[in-house]
Amino acid sequence: MKNVAVILSGCGVYDGTEIHEAVLCLLHLTKQGARYQCFAPDKAQHHVVNHLTGEEQSGTRNVLEESARIARGEITPLQELDASRFDALLLPGGFGAAKNLCDFAAQGAQAQVDPQVLAACKAFAKARKPAGYCCIAPVLIPHVYPAGVKGTIGTDTGVAAAFNAMGGDHVGCAVTDVVEDSHYQVISTPAYMLAGSIAEADTGIGKLVKRLLEM
Amino acid sequence: MKNVAVILSGCGVYDGTEIHEAVLCLLHLTKQGARYQCFAPDKAQHHVVNHLTGEEQSGTRNVLEESARIARGEITPLQELDASRFDALLLPGGFGAAKNLCDFAAQGAQAQVDPQVLAACKAFAKARKPAGYCCIAPVLIPHVYPAGVKGTIGTDTGVAAAFNAMGGDHVGCAVTDVVEDSHYQVISTPAYMLAGSIAEADTGIGKLVKRLLEM
Repeated sequence: MKNVAVILSGCGVYDGTEIHEAVLCLLHLTKQGARYQCFAPDKAQHHVVNHLTGEEQSGTRNVLEESARIARGEITPLQELDASRFDALLLPGGFGAAKNLCDFAAQGAQAQVDPQVLAACKAFAKARKPAGYCCIAPVLIPHVYPAGVKGTIGTDTGVAAAFNAMGGDHVGCAVTDVVEDSHYQVISTPAYMLAGSIAEADTGIGKLVKRLLEM
Repeated sequence: MKNVAVILSGCGVYDGTEIHEAVLCLLHLTKQGARYQCFAPDKAQHHVVNHLTGEEQSGTRNVLEESARIARGEITPLQELDASRFDALLLPGGFGAAKNLCDFAAQGAQAQVDPQVLAACKAFAKARKPAGYCCIAPVLIPHVYPAGVKGTIGTDTGVAAAFNAMGGDHVGCAVTDVVEDSHYQVISTPAYMLAGSIAEADTGIGKLVKRLLEM
């Protein structure tokens, strides 16, 4: 049974992990016969967004504690992630990937990646273990892999240009499909960068998980 | 295309909606050709639980605002739910159903239901429109329907006894199955009252949604 590490970034599309994507990742891993362990950075979120109004609200929340809501409490601090104990890595999207795992949401192509996140992702890359990135999380890919690595965030021209400016090779992709870099063993899917419904996100994520477990 | 109202109770198994169950409900509704609109009460949660430690934490959160995280912002205050505009009703579980929609978690068989929740559920019952309840949410069923209504919370003998004490007729049920009261058009499934994995919850919820849309 393959064992997959899943990195979360909070709980809610506007300031954390996109919840549908995270649950679809866990669902497809389980239905396709893999086990998983969730991880998240133990630090304050970039900010808190009221998801009813879309406005920033006062207060602080911890990325690990909020991610634990998606993981039903079964989650481990990211600093404890040991890539040698896992067969693959999987990152759902949501603004948390661009606000808490790196600062792409604010800095675009000048983004820097959280050091723990970078170390974790690079450990899988170095070990040639496959990794899957959903939605906006692929903006991490050019930081993790050498120049020319292929990935997709769908069809957004601005984000695609930033992906290329950071050293990646962006490939346009439909919501129901995936882009695979078979040399670096990294795969990505647009999910809610393009999805008009949860069923559309489900199709792409199902394909991504299938290829992730086959690699 | 059938239109289903979904009532949420926050965001996180210990103080709100069970996230996996809510997402699986939305997934199956969409994949089976229905549309949905999420609703939640606009009030403070009973309390806030740190999902990493399981301990109550300080602060207050609003049920509607937190539920909006699951609904990606597309949610309406429960007081605006007009049953005449929907074909069916669906309630995922999580402690929020027993802490925010009613006070069953504290009061057991002496529980009282939030007046807005009771009015919304009774409107569907009165109109003979089908309703589905997952996990612990079926403890609402005896408050909504006449004595003798059938429902399940799985196999927990204490909760089953309380269900009966409140006027219901509890029927034991496996996690992958549903219990249907065809007279009152109400259907329930144990979900995470019994599920050992998200795939198990998925099977039961998939069946529940299928029958809900057939009724």
